Amino acid sequence: MTVRYELDASSGHARAGRILTSHGEVPTPAFMPVGTQASVKALSSEEVAGTGARMQIMNTYHLWLRPGPERVAELGGLHGFARWPHAIATDSGGFQAFSLAERTKMSEDGFEFSSHLDGKRMKLTPEEAMRIQGLLGADIAMQLDVCSNGNAALPELVAAVERTTRWAERCLAAQTPGQALFGIVQGGTNVELRLQHAETLAQLPFQGLALGGFSVGEPPELMLGTPEDLLIAIGAGVDLFDCVMPTRNARNGQAFTWHGKVTIKNARYKDDPLPLDPDCGCSACRAGYSRAYLRHLFVAGEILALRMLSEHNLTLYARLMREARAAVLAGTYADFAAERLAVFRNLPDTNELR
Amino acid sequence: MTVRYELDASSGHARAGRILTSHGEVPTPAFMPVGTQASVKALSSEEVAGTGARMQIMNTYHLWLRPGPERVAELGGLHGFARWPHAIATDSGGFQAFSLAERTKMSEDGFEFSSHLDGKRMKLTPEEAMRIQGLLGADIAMQLDVCSNGNAALPELVAAVERTTRWAERCLAAQTPGQALFGIVQGGTNVELRLQHAETLAQLPFQGLALGGFSVGEPPELMLGTPEDLLIAIGAGVDLFDCVMPTRNARNGQAFTWHGKVTIKNARYKDDPLPLDPDCGCSACRAGYSRAYLRHLFVAGEILALRMLSEHNLTLYARLMREARAAVLAGTYADFAAERLAVFRNLPDTNELR
Repeated sequence: MTVRYELDASSGHARAGRILTSHGEVPTPAFMPVGTQASVKALSSEEVAGTGARMQIMNTYHLWLRPGPERVAELGGLHGFARWPHAIATDSGGFQAFSLAERTKMSEDGFEFSSHLDGKRMKLTPEEAMRIQGLLGADIAMQLDVCSNGNAALPELVAAVERTTRWAERCLAAQTPGQALFGIVQGGTNVELRLQHAETLAQLPFQGLALGGFSVGEPPELMLGTPEDLLIAIGAGVDLFDCVMPTRNARNGQAFTWHGKVTIKNARYKDDPLPLDPDCGCSACRAGYSRAYLRHLFVAGEILALRMLSEHNLTLYARLMREARAAVLAGTYADFAAERLAVFRNLPDTNELR
Repeated sequence: MTVRYELDASSGHARAGRILTSHGEVPTPAFMPVGTQASVKALSSEEVAGTGARMQIMNTYHLWLRPGPERVAELGGLHGFARWPHAIATDSGGFQAFSLAERTKMSEDGFEFSSHLDGKRMKLTPEEAMRIQGLLGADIAMQLDVCSNGNAALPELVAAVERTTRWAERCLAAQTPGQALFGIVQGGTNVELRLQHAETLAQLPFQGLALGGFSVGEPPELMLGTPEDLLIAIGAGVDLFDCVMPTRNARNGQAFTWHGKVTIKNARYKDDPLPLDPDCGCSACRAGYSRAYLRHLFVAGEILALRMLSEHNLTLYARLMREARAAVLAGTYADFAAERLAVFRNLPDTNELR
């Protein structure tokens, strides 16, 4: 297996480690920017790496439909295709077959659905998910799983968990040699069921486990992905994260800063000569682009605003991970997290710098 | 005056020179990328400079309406606001008052119109154009001019020319100290009238003359802005160009290359592993991003495609200018232009590299 994990230190449940891949080392805890269609929206590969990120997660469903896994394989796999020399994970495609595709039917065999692009009837089985991800060539693939709605009743959650386990075994049997495979823990927001499922999957020869089925119908206050959420999850022992929040919120004009959130279109930034965050090392903050300029670009519909906010947010997420790792190595994670949480929580959508 | 022109060499009518500004030297012939709203669409200032460009032209009408010239002045003028350390020109705003604004009325005093953003009634006089451009702080301002429709009858063209001359005098009287001012030659596609107007304006104490009133209703085959057009215009003695073509066409998926045009969404590029142009020094071509990847990004609606194509096209325009300048200095412009024109003209929308 070309991917393995080494644990460097623990602090409470929080862990510092490294994921070793044939595309380099990923210090953990780590945040994976989402390169849905083999591109982190608005950013170049060089910029994504410049934020500090060392692993991207890309989307099997989207890349299967377009440009197609055979084509990606011909063009050097995702690493060559997207010119991303660092590690890559791909998701299983199950979430999009469930949420984005049309006329989806699920059976024990897999998903049948119509492509949201051209209506073409497609079938995604555990074996097909392995074949597609093998062609895409990520360092880490994910098993096909059943996402149940976060509000589902217990019998539905249990059925999803059990089918996910059966599909786990089928995926392991079809695993691409040399590619790591993660199992996916389901169970909705039912903690007991989640724990049981994690224990079940931990018995199987996966190289790692992922927590699936979030952001599927829960109320917004239960959706995860803010810096605060990540701090809490690291404290619970999670090593690796992905979420569209830093890049999607950026495109909606929201910046995360070490001093609270900045909603850039707010009139208060019209004349603000400060960079987004004087404490930030992203290229926009370092170059001194003012909030007033970013606001102007955003309001005027200029792409450059989306780029700068995206790069900025990913830079903050990567730095948060580095600082968390340092705190774990120093054995002071609980203090670190409490301090950071106090700052993030006390400064919602405000900026008290001036 | 902080801007002056030095002539280095001539070759036929073609000229090689330098525009010396307090924001650096601009070797000519030069192409100015268009930063309409204080941003060259999709690109950062650093990337624009990386293409080789040393002067941008920005848009008085747009920046007047949003974010407003007083605000730009407060934030360091356009150079500080947009973090562009090189030279900047601003246009007069007349073209947009004529083409983009609503319910425009022109009188001897100036334009009255409704903002296309919020319907607010605005008035742009020669004196106001000077005041706004003075606040924006470009190195070179343009006089307010009257753009007549390219298809207009002679009496209308003559009236536009004569009013433009009267406005030229008013602009000169209101010129901002330290800011260069260019007159604008009108006359539609009537060569005789253009020549007369150029001679008239050349008698006035302008620091340069611009050719205005193109792309106002002529048939597409008479619109200018392709590499071929620029080669011909340089041969006729033009020093400085601006056009949205390289960036707008990029956003529509068209790349200019040294081997012909590439319409990136064409199916022929689906599996093409070559960069856009192996002879190009832009960052996308140097990094080896394939046409297949660019096509995928473009078809998938990813911003990165627009960025890479924009940077690529501007890189070609800047290199064309550098090569033209070298040919003028070598005294071989006619041969150079003929050779380049043959290549550009024989390879329309095709790519014979493979």
